[in-house]
This record gives sequence, structure tokens and C-alpha cells, in this order.
Amino acid sequence: MVIDLNGDLGESYGRWHVADEAAIVSALTSVNLACGFHAGDPTSLRAAIRLAATHRVAIGAHPGYPDLRGFGRVAMALPPQQVRDDVIYQLGALQALCHAEGEPLRHVKPHGALYHAVAEDPASAEAFAEAVAAFDAGLPVMVRAGSSAEEVMESAGLQVLPEAFLDRGYYPDGSLVPRQRPGALLHDLDEIAERALRLVRHGLISAIDGSDVRLRAATLCLHGDGVNAATAAHRVRDTLLAAGVTLHPASA
Amino acid sequence: MVIDLNGDLGESYGRWHVADEAAIVSALTSVNLACGFHAGDPTSLRAAIRLAATHRVAIGAHPGYPDLRGFGRVAMALPPQQVRDDVIYQLGALQALCHAEGEPLRHVKPHGALYHAVAEDPASAEAFAEAVAAFDAGLPVMVRAGSSAEEVMESAGLQVLPEAFLDRGYYPDGSLVPRQRPGALLHDLDEIAERALRLVRHGLISAIDGSDVRLRAATLCLHGDGVNAATAAHRVRDTLLAAGVTLHPASA
Amino acid sequence: MVIDLNGDLGESYGRWHVADEAAIVSALTSVNLACGFHAGDPTSLRAAIRLAATHRVAIGAHPGYPDLRGFGRVAMALPPQQVRDDVIYQLGALQALCHAEGEPLRHVKPHGALYHAVAEDPASAEAFAEAVAAFDAGLPVMVRAGSSAEEVMESAGLQVLPEAFLDRGYYPDGSLVPRQRPGALLHDLDEIAERALRLVRHGLISAIDGSDVRLRAATLCLHGDGVNAATAAHRVRDTLLAAGVTLHPASA
Amino acid sequence: MVIDLNGDLGESYGRWHVADEAAIVSALTSVNLACGFHAGDPTSLRAAIRLAATHRVAIGAHPGYPDLRGFGRVAMALPPQQVRDDVIYQLGALQALCHAEGEPLRHVKPHGALYHAVAEDPASAEAFAEAVAAFDAGLPVMVRAGSSAEEVMESAGLQVLPEAFLDRGYYPDGSLVPRQRPGALLHDLDEIAERALRLVRHGLISAIDGSDVRLRAATLCLHGDGVNAATAAHRVRDTLLAAGVTLHPASA
Repeated sequence: MVIDLNGDLGESYGRWHVADEAAIVSALTSVNLACGFHAGDPTSLRAAIRLAATHRVAIGAHPGYPDLRGFGRVAMALPPQQVRDDVIYQLGALQALCHAEGEPLRHVKPHGALYHAVAEDPASAEAFAEAVAAFDAGLPVMVRAGSSAEEVMESAGLQVLPEAFLDRGYYPDGSLVPRQRPGALLHDLDEIAERALRLVRHGLISAIDGSDVRLRAATLCLHGDGVNAATAAHRVRDTLLAAGVTLHPASA
Repeated sequence: MVIDLNGDLGESYGRWHVADEAAIVSALTSVNLACGFHAGDPTSLRAAIRLAATHRVAIGAHPGYPDLRGFGRVAMALPPQQVRDDVIYQLGALQALCHAEGEPLRHVKPHGALYHAVAEDPASAEAFAEAVAAFDAGLPVMVRAGSSAEEVMESAGLQVLPEAFLDRGYYPDGSLVPRQRPGALLHDLDEIAERALRLVRHGLISAIDGSDVRLRAATLCLHGDGVNAATAAHRVRDTLLAAGVTLHPASA
Repeated sequence: MVIDLNGDLGESYGRWHVADEAAIVSALTSVNLACGFHAGDPTSLRAAIRLAATHRVAIGAHPGYPDLRGFGRVAMALPPQQVRDDVIYQLGALQALCHAEGEPLRHVKPHGALYHAVAEDPASAEAFAEAVAAFDAGLPVMVRAGSSAEEVMESAGLQVLPEAFLDRGYYPDGSLVPRQRPGALLHDLDEIAERALRLVRHGLISAIDGSDVRLRAATLCLHGDGVNAATAAHRVRDTLLAAGVTLHPASA
Repeated sequence: MVIDLNGDLGESYGRWHVADEAAIVSALTSVNLACGFHAGDPTSLRAAIRLAATHRVAIGAHPGYPDLRGFGRVAMALPPQQVRDDVIYQLGALQALCHAEGEPLRHVKPHGALYHAVAEDPASAEAFAEAVAAFDAGLPVMVRAGSSAEEVMESAGLQVLPEAFLDRGYYPDGSLVPRQRPGALLHDLDEIAERALRLVRHGLISAIDGSDVRLRAATLCLHGDGVNAATAAHRVRDTLLAAGVTLHPASA
């Protein structure tokens, strides 16, 4: 039993520092770095890359919509061509910063509203796939396990890393409960850790109606911005390790 | 006698299109592409890269200060570390877009107020040199001919392409008359063309007091944003070609 | 027969100047000024206010989504509370600039994707109405004639100025053909002028299927960003004047 | 003995929340609200206005340079005309949000690098004074006590509220030690409180060389972004109250 634990990093901007980024990184095997459009100025990104390197986690790019104020969480009806070009731009920018720190870029994962657009809208998924293929066709892509994006990425010749969420509510069809709806966010640490273990062991997660959803996940997402984010991440890590699960970057 | 003619490209932003970019490119041998901080969204940059490719000109990066409203022409007292990281970010972003179009990145030239900071402030020049060296130490750097930046770039192991300006007034010490001062901008096309020829033939340019400034220039800058920009560029090109000068990218 | 002709103004940003703004203003009776979120930096806005004052046209505010790159034309799923606060912010900013020039603010009209959201999504319309009512309940609001926004504004106690479009295609239900669809934009100047006259005389406009749509319009919109924008505006103006129509700001 | 204690508020931006803003407000009599250019999106500003109203402190505007990433602390060589227009824009925007909450705007204070430009550069001070005078000539302006800005504001017919800093080092000429220099920031709470009392009682503050600087201050600035900011603010407040000093907004 092997799994990857991924979380976001580099989400500061200028004087606004996201606290506790260090606290969560030590629980992870992969990190997704903001690329400047929804968060992450170049100087704070370099600091985040150094932090990731210190903890020997795999560094990925986390491109998002060009919306600092909305933190990339606002759905935007961008033309696919613009999505593609924005993603290429962000991948190049982050890779250059990684290269300056001597660190390789190991995967890519769309952020926020772009993540959901990629999971649900084939035109957005194709634009994203085109961008990654044009930039570096060897870069694996994290997308929501069970979404149509899996097939789009594979058709573009990209390696897919299907991802499941431990602290987000699921509908019976495998889609996520939107953030503003009841049941969107789970807070019970025992439940979150139990979900992780069940996913790794059995490929199953409970939907909000109590039914089981079958998910084939290569990586589990741990959010960093909740109150108990770091505690939750370490609880998941410890639970998995205690059960004999090997933690390893999915991109390796 | 060989010289490079360079000009700026990719200076549109979203719906704001800079007119006549095509008209000037056909006169040039090298173009400097904005990188998104002072101008150039990813989609308009891809269009500019394709335009440059069509005209077979050498493509360079033109990173600037993060100031869309001021078009990168406002002096900003940024910490050197931030200048360095911003330049790495921009170089990576533009290179990724070039790569997606199958075009190589051939040189780099600081833009606007950053250009002047690099020419006049050693800390800024060192930050810029560090950025280029960290990104790709084989990338030649255009800096103002005769400025202290030449030595800073050479000390960092970078190839320098000294640059002279045809349509800007010079002080006797070889520095440029600031844009808001009288004599900053030359408009007479005959005079501009004559300055080009004299620079290539004799390495001399007239300062605003009538004295001669000696400049060793590998590339001549032609601005694209004046009323007669394209006409001026073609007049310079034709004058040089008629005099038997070979036009060739300095980065080659 | 009295009608208002309105058009957009103040859509420059920093060094990017929108050409010909003066050419169209002379044809109008009301102008809608960008407020800085999708276009219009404070200094270019002051110049636009002075231009409007010179032509004695009624000045209105044209608040939009916070998206310079997309020029406010990208649909954004913003929380209504944020729409409301953004509109209040923009109204205050523009009014302060008008006050500094001694000019009154006479109306408000949502811009771009926000215009369409107000016309089609009641939550957006309510947020917009709340903003105007909180700012100045005496400020009339231009919304799409026949849209549900008319009722929302009236319920909020605001004066409605129903608006029709001369150069945009209509569906039989009175909604606009989206910009990226065939038939969205009309280019024939005779047809545009004829539509204006028919609207004023009979309250009718032809839909793309040839059927008639009944519209009660207090103001007619003339876009400023097409190739023949100024020519079209003057053709409409001249046609209406020749037919004995009085042109007058709807807000007066 | 009467004095005003002022501090900054509304410095969040989108998802980046500045912690502990509530903790410091309860110690103050006046607050300076960011206006969107260096911090403060409209929705977070409304929350800050409500917070200020709850604590019954006087609300002022804190306009800054257009630089989110640098938080308005980067010196920018903006043309005076642009400074003026930017300040008018920000004042109008903030006042509209205050008006929507039923709160009056009571003073204005330049932020960060603009504060220093106003204190040291007469052209910037004049541009700022012009903006306030054009917006509302009855609005008092906080500027550095002893700076040339005092005279500029008075010449423009504006009421000046001279300000002293408790946690910043002073040079013997009354200017502030720049943030990046040794001695710029004081951290000892006893010393800060003692400085407050001495300033109110005797109009004197110790410079970094031990000499005394005479300052006539109507308001004392308490920074909110240090580690012990709230503790320091309350210590100053308690010390002054215990010594019989009356705390009252200087703008009242």
C-alpha cells in the first residue's frame, strides 16, 4: 500500500504571509506551489521552494486563474486559448524559480476554480492538457479521481495522478460538494484520518448521503488553510504510517 | 560593418492592442518581448512570438517592474532580491511561451525604469545579472553602452550586447536625457538615420551640447511607440543597408 | 419624440490610450465612464470627465468586474456581497473625480459581464440595486430594456432607464446574442440608423429571426470600440435629428 | 492634556486576513483605513468600517501608492498629477463605503511610501494637498510633525494634525530612521509607553543619538503589524489614562 499526500504551498503574497506553511509541509510528500496569478509573488515562491526542498517533498506547479482578490476560487468564463496560455506562462515562471534553487518540477495540478473547470468542463480540460503537453509532456497532472479530466489528460498523452479529497464532502456521483454548501468541509480529525485509510485500503469514500463512492486515487489532498490544517495533515500521516502504508510522491 | 536593430514587441495587454507592431518588426533584426509585468498578457505574447517568428527576427525577453499602469516606466525602489526573483519569473514565463511556439529565446534586455536602474545602480545591475545567470548564463544581455552595467554583467560571466539609442538625446557623459526633459526625444528622421550610420561607421554620437560621445554599440534601439516609429525604423534600416552595413542579430 | 444616445468613455488605462474617444462623444447625449476595475486609471478618467464636460454630455458611472485583462467582459461568479461592495467603491471613486472637475454624476450603468449578470441573474441585479441605493438612491440606472433587472431596480426604489442596443443582434425574447455568436454584431450603418429610428418611432426592433421585439427604451447604446464606431454614432444622431427626434440625456 | 491615538485598519486583501485588527482598535481613538491601492478590497473595508464603528473610533482614509505586492511601502517616482488623481479616487471610494455604513469620514493620512514622500518632497505634498482640497477641504490631514508637509497643507487651507511615532526611531532633525536601518523600530513596551507620556507632557522625544527632539503632535501613531502591536497599543493607552491624559480623536 503506497499513497501520496499533497498540499498547497507558496500562497503568501507580498506582505501577506500565510502562517503555518512549514507546519503542514512536514506531513506531506508532494506540494503544489502557487504560480503568481492567484497567489505567490516571486520572492515568496522562492522561499516556499526552499522550504519544500528542506523537507524533501516533490514540488509541483499549481497554476490558477488570474484573480488575486478571489484567490483563484471564483469561476471565470475564460476563453480556452487564454487558459492554455496562462497555464504555460505560470508553468514556465515557476519552473524558472525552481531551477534557480536547483529543484526539479515534478507535477502540475490546477488550482481552485480552474481545478473544478478542468474536472467538469472538457474545453477547460483540453486547454489545460494542451498547455502541459506544450510545456513538458512528461509532467504528470493531478486531477479529480473519477472526473472526465482523467480521460482528457490521457488522450493528450499525459500521465494522470487521480486525486481524492479527505476533508471535502462528496456527492454519490463522485463530484465534490461546493464550498458554500452544507457538508462541503469536514472538520472531524478522526473521520478525516479514517477516510484516508479506507481510501488507501479499499478505494472507497463515503458520500454525504452515506453511500460509498469508489475512487482510484494516487494522491490524497490535504488543505492547508483550515484552522486545524497542520494537525489534520499529521493525523492522516500518522494513521497511514501506523497502518503500514508507504508515503511516497505519486510523481516519482 | 555589422549591426543589430532592436525594438520592443508584445506590448499589448488584454483588449488594449498596440497598433502597428507588425509595421516595425519588418525593419528589425531583434525584438524584445514584454513579459507580463509592465505589458503583455500570455495570449498577446504568443501572438507577438508568432509575429516575430514570421519575420525571422531574434526574440529576446524584456522583463520590467511590476507596474501595468505605469508601463514599467516609473522608478521603484524595489529590494534587489525582489528584482532578481521578478526577472527569473518573467524569463521563465516568456521562455515557456516561446518554447510552445518552437522559438528559442536569444537575449534579454531590461525594460523602462528597470533598464535605467540596471545602467545606473550597481545593486540593481547585480540583481539583474544574478537572475540571468541563474536562469541561463548563456543568454546575452543588452545594456546601455558605456554604462557601469557592462562591467557588472561581464563580472557575472554574461555576454554583454552594448546598446545605443538613435532617437534619444545623450548627455556628454553618455547617459540619456530623461524622457520628461527637453531634448529627450529626437523626431527628425534624417537626423536619426544619420546618427545610426555615424554610430556604425565611427562609434560616435552627438550629445545635446553638440559634443561627440564615443559608444561601442552592438545593437541600436528603435522605439516603437512614437508617431513615426515604423517609418523611422525603416528609414534607419534602408540607410544602413544602402551604406553597405550588414544587419544581423547581435545575439547570434 | 425624445431619446438619449449613450456610449462608453474613459476606457484607456495607463499608457494604453483608446483612440477616437473624442470622435464619438460629439454624437452622444450621455456617456458611461469606466471606474478603474475593468478600465480607467484615475488620471485618464479625469481627462475623460473633462472631455465629457466640453461636449456637455451627461456623465454616468460604468462600474465593472475587477478584471483589467478581460476588460470586464469575462463572466465571474462573484458573491453578491462583493458585487455590491465593488460597485459602491467604484461609484464613490468616480464621483470624487467628477466632483474635483465640478461635474455631477447623473446615472449609472453596469459594464460588460456585470451588465449581463444584472440583466439575467436576480441576485446580481439585487446586489447592484443595493449598491446604488446605498450610494445615492436618486441615481437612475440603465439596464437592458425588457430584462428582469427593470423590476429589481424599481423594487429597490430606483429610477430605471431602459436601454436598447442598435449594433447588437436580438433574440426574439429580447435578450442579446452573445458577442461570440453569429449575428451578435451589426455593421451596416444604414441598418443601424434605421433600427434607431424604428425604435424611437415604434418601439420595435428586429430579432435575428426577422421577428419584431417590442422594446420600451429611454436610451440607445452606441458602442465605441468598433471600426466605424464614431461614424455609426454620428449617422444615428443625424438620422434621428433629421427625423425630428429630440436628443436629450435620459437622466435629466 | 489631550491626545489622539491612531492606528491602521482594513489592511486585509481578499483571502489574506490581517489577524488581530480587532485587538488593536480597542486601544485607539482614530483609525486609518486602507483604500484599495496598497491593501483593502471593498468587502474587507466594509468589515473594517463596521469594526471601527463598533469601537466608536474616528475613521480616516489611508490612501497609498498603487502597489499591492509592496503594500505601498515601495518608493515610486509617480508624476504629481497621478498622485493627486489617485488620492481623489481612493478618498471617494472609501467615503462611499463609509456612507453605506452610515459612518462619516473624519481625516486623511497618507500611507507608507506616500507618507514619506509627502513629508519630504514638496511636489508630492502639494499633489496630496490638492487632492484633499478638491475632495473635501474640511478634512484634516495627518502628516509627520515637524515636516515641511505641515506648511504645505496649511498653505492649501487644510487643517493639519501633526503626528509623532512611538515605535519608530528618530534622527536628531526629527526625521524617521528608515525601516531597513538599525534603530528604526522600537520593541520595548515600557520605552514606548514612556515616550508617549513624555511627548504628551513635554513635547519631547529621544532621537537615536540620545538628543531630544521637540515635536508638537496632535496624534500618536501605533503600528498594528508588529508582534506585540496590540499589547503595545494597550500599554500606551493605559499609561496615558493612568497619568490623567484624555484620549480623543484629533479630528473632532
